[in-house]
Amino acid sequence: MENKNNAITSQSQDFAQWYTDVVRKAELMNYASVKGFINYLPYSYAIWEEIQNYFNKRIKNELGAKNVYLPLVIPMSMFNKEKEHVEGFAPEALIATIGGAKQLEDPLVIRPTSEILFSDLYKQIVSSYRDLPISFNQWCSVVRWEKTTRPFLRGSEFLWQEGHCLFETEEEARDNVKKALDIYDDLGRDLLAIPFLKGKKTENEKFAGAIATYTIEALMPDGKALQSGTSHYLGQGFAEAYGIHYLGRQNKLETPHQTSWGVSTRLLGAIIMVHGDDNGLVLPPRVAPTQVVIVPIKMQAEGVLDACHEIYDALKSQGIRVKLDDDDTRTPGWKFAQYEMKGVPLRIEVGPRDLANGEAVLTKRVNGEKKVLPIKEIEKLCAPLLDEIHNDMYQKALKYRDEHITKVNNLDELNAALNNVGGYALMAYDGTPESEVKIKELTKGGTARCIAEELPEDTDLLDPVTGKKARILAYFARAY
Amino acid sequence: MENKNNAITSQSQDFAQWYTDVVRKAELMNYASVKGFINYLPYSYAIWEEIQNYFNKRIKNELGAKNVYLPLVIPMSMFNKEKEHVEGFAPEALIATIGGAKQLEDPLVIRPTSEILFSDLYKQIVSSYRDLPISFNQWCSVVRWEKTTRPFLRGSEFLWQEGHCLFETEEEARDNVKKALDIYDDLGRDLLAIPFLKGKKTENEKFAGAIATYTIEALMPDGKALQSGTSHYLGQGFAEAYGIHYLGRQNKLETPHQTSWGVSTRLLGAIIMVHGDDNGLVLPPRVAPTQVVIVPIKMQAEGVLDACHEIYDALKSQGIRVKLDDDDTRTPGWKFAQYEMKGVPLRIEVGPRDLANGEAVLTKRVNGEKKVLPIKEIEKLCAPLLDEIHNDMYQKALKYRDEHITKVNNLDELNAALNNVGGYALMAYDGTPESEVKIKELTKGGTARCIAEELPEDTDLLDPVTGKKARILAYFARAY
Repeated sequence: MENKNNAITSQSQDFAQWYTDVVRKAELMNYASVKGFINYLPYSYAIWEEIQNYFNKRIKNELGAKNVYLPLVIPMSMFNKEKEHVEGFAPEALIATIGGAKQLEDPLVIRPTSEILFSDLYKQIVSSYRDLPISFNQWCSVVRWEKTTRPFLRGSEFLWQEGHCLFETEEEARDNVKKALDIYDDLGRDLLAIPFLKGKKTENEKFAGAIATYTIEALMPDGKALQSGTSHYLGQGFAEAYGIHYLGRQNKLETPHQTSWGVSTRLLGAIIMVHGDDNGLVLPPRVAPTQVVIVPIKMQAEGVLDACHEIYDALKSQGIRVKLDDDDTRTPGWKFAQYEMKGVPLRIEVGPRDLANGEAVLTKRVNGEKKVLPIKEIEKLCAPLLDEIHNDMYQKALKYRDEHITKVNNLDELNAALNNVGGYALMAYDGTPESEVKIKELTKGGTARCIAEELPEDTDLLDPVTGKKARILAYFARAY
Repeated sequence: MENKNNAITSQSQDFAQWYTDVVRKAELMNYASVKGFINYLPYSYAIWEEIQNYFNKRIKNELGAKNVYLPLVIPMSMFNKEKEHVEGFAPEALIATIGGAKQLEDPLVIRPTSEILFSDLYKQIVSSYRDLPISFNQWCSVVRWEKTTRPFLRGSEFLWQEGHCLFETEEEARDNVKKALDIYDDLGRDLLAIPFLKGKKTENEKFAGAIATYTIEALMPDGKALQSGTSHYLGQGFAEAYGIHYLGRQNKLETPHQTSWGVSTRLLGAIIMVHGDDNGLVLPPRVAPTQVVIVPIKMQAEGVLDACHEIYDALKSQGIRVKLDDDDTRTPGWKFAQYEMKGVPLRIEVGPRDLANGEAVLTKRVNGEKKVLPIKEIEKLCAPLLDEIHNDMYQKALKYRDEHITKVNNLDELNAALNNVGGYALMAYDGTPESEVKIKELTKGGTARCIAEELPEDTDLLDPVTGKKARILAYFARAY
């Protein structure tokens, strides 16, 4: 493979180029032959598997969700039934027109999302209130034909999970929407060391076909927000459009309330940007494919490799994902740079001098902090140290996020905040899509990421565009 | 959902209809709107997840395989490079021609298998012998536009894993092919309770583009074989066609040796047919989504529900997948039929009379065998009992398989064996594709499932069609 010890562009020099360099040099992905499509290499896919493990447990235990798999194609005739939804997705559809060497009578849309397919399934299997609630989830890829793509952030194909649920009442459905969002938020805090901003989307930013969309947003070091997951209350629109009805408790035909929620491999993009630095990736320990790397110094010296193996065995037996790099064709310096690039959270060096004292040197990737520990204690101290690193990373990201929330009162202040500070600008507006469109235009791309609060009737705040009474306080930012 | 207590067609009356009834009534799948595509419902997908868990562990630990994800589309221009491969797959290709509302210049084939995509990836990342061996695997769906489809057995889209590896030498590659096949064989014996027939495919039956294909075949109760997994030695053909070369140990440019291997959700079809009976599914305990169901008898009687909960908690804490059905709107008889249909391996009944003796009645789904056990001992005896059920099922299937291997010497005997006994007929032939084609024609569908042995030069056996000296002893059967 290519030489991984080449320097990468620094973040301050060109953040976008830094990102492109890191995803390639850390061997997270490479480009496939079709523009906009990527190969997810083992180092990124292993992170995705950790996310899957965490999420599967939570949704199975707490939301009663069950995994399923539905087709990857939607007949065009069926695709066209829910008006807002099709308007949202038709422009970026990939469409198959030939099957078995024949022209298809009803062309097939490669799924961009599966609300329609789940609605079609639920129509078949839901007939009584006894069948509700129903909560299915699938892990799959979806296709959206994008003009401008970036690895993990926006691609013509990406991996995700999509949960789709039906309930008897609006209350239960809205509760499910919030619970799914809370699990996403926990996933950020507990697994990825990312503090999300959590809230409801504005009218202009909600999902095509939803009554309400909730989001988790992460803040990137270039000051832009990254929408990292969404949870939707779909109301009864899809059920009406696709004919899902059931015999209710009062023996009358009823229409269920629907939800859907999803996170994607975009989370990998969030991890890379939130934590990375000029030496490459910095991976949160709980998803890192390698959590600890052991590097012997002067490998030939007596006892060094033995001590390394002893540490390796002790950590391995605890289930820690540990690697011992005893390749004698590479120098320790080369290895240090290599594992820094790959963001391994903790490095353990063992050399003859340390060994003479019964010690080893442990270095945290996140901040370079070193600890000299007795080898005998590493077994006991390693797991807590990985937790400490997780917390270091979360606190660092939280501090950055909190330092990048600016209160603003008008468009000049908004522009100044977005251009000079970056991050979120907290501003009141009248809550109309028209005003949002105008704000986006006047700030060259500032959008409402989510609602901070709905304002009381007697507020004094005014919309900065229309001058009308403000209705909503929202976080505005530039976004990916 | 529909009433699941309806009777199903018996196997002897109409085996194909029995199969269709079972996959629907046991809620394994239902039909999607596009012909040939199905919805994998939770009850089948959970079995697939167990297969994934087993297989991921084995291939990661024993074959050094790493999971990845590659695109679902292959540009038509790239698809056409390996001649035999494209001839094999082009007739059943699903082809996308429109993306983002525009006609695509290079149409995209939805992957029917990913040899081409992996070759294209490996071309990018393999440059030195130090990069070998490389062994990537992916879990995904593939699309083959089929005219006649049956749930899990042959579909226009199905789920599978595909491993793709590169090696420096033919020997290493062929070793990998056999190791993957052995893992498939173990998976049958240890997880699915299915005895596979394992061997090399004949020339006529090998994979399009392979030098050698190895197979695992399972025998169905209707006497037909089901190809259940394959492992291929691809030689250097794909590497040549797609330009994968590396700098070898002698500092010369070399071409690697390639393998690929896969099993699919066809395994679900094998489980259903090998073990099922006229009461529905019979699931092997190690993949059953529910391994044990507890049914209270006279639920209102004092102590019955408490005793059920006690057993439930004891089994649950051991990690046994147990369900307690305390629905008071259904009779025990209805529940018995229901869990028989769903193939739950072990049923535990607790009623007032048993309880008075401190006992419960345990019934094995596979053979109806009952045991009356002290409730206190269930905790200890349940896991061994599930193993016993696994062995019962494996032995039953093995006996059936072994009783359906007939040695035959000519076409009359072959026809008699296939038509009257069913199963495999062991017959010698000259090893040519021409003879295989003729045998298939003269037996109305009998094909060589795999090679039993290559015959010595001085064999007396003759080909039943050409009269030439026989070269190969093979298992012939009708097949799915």
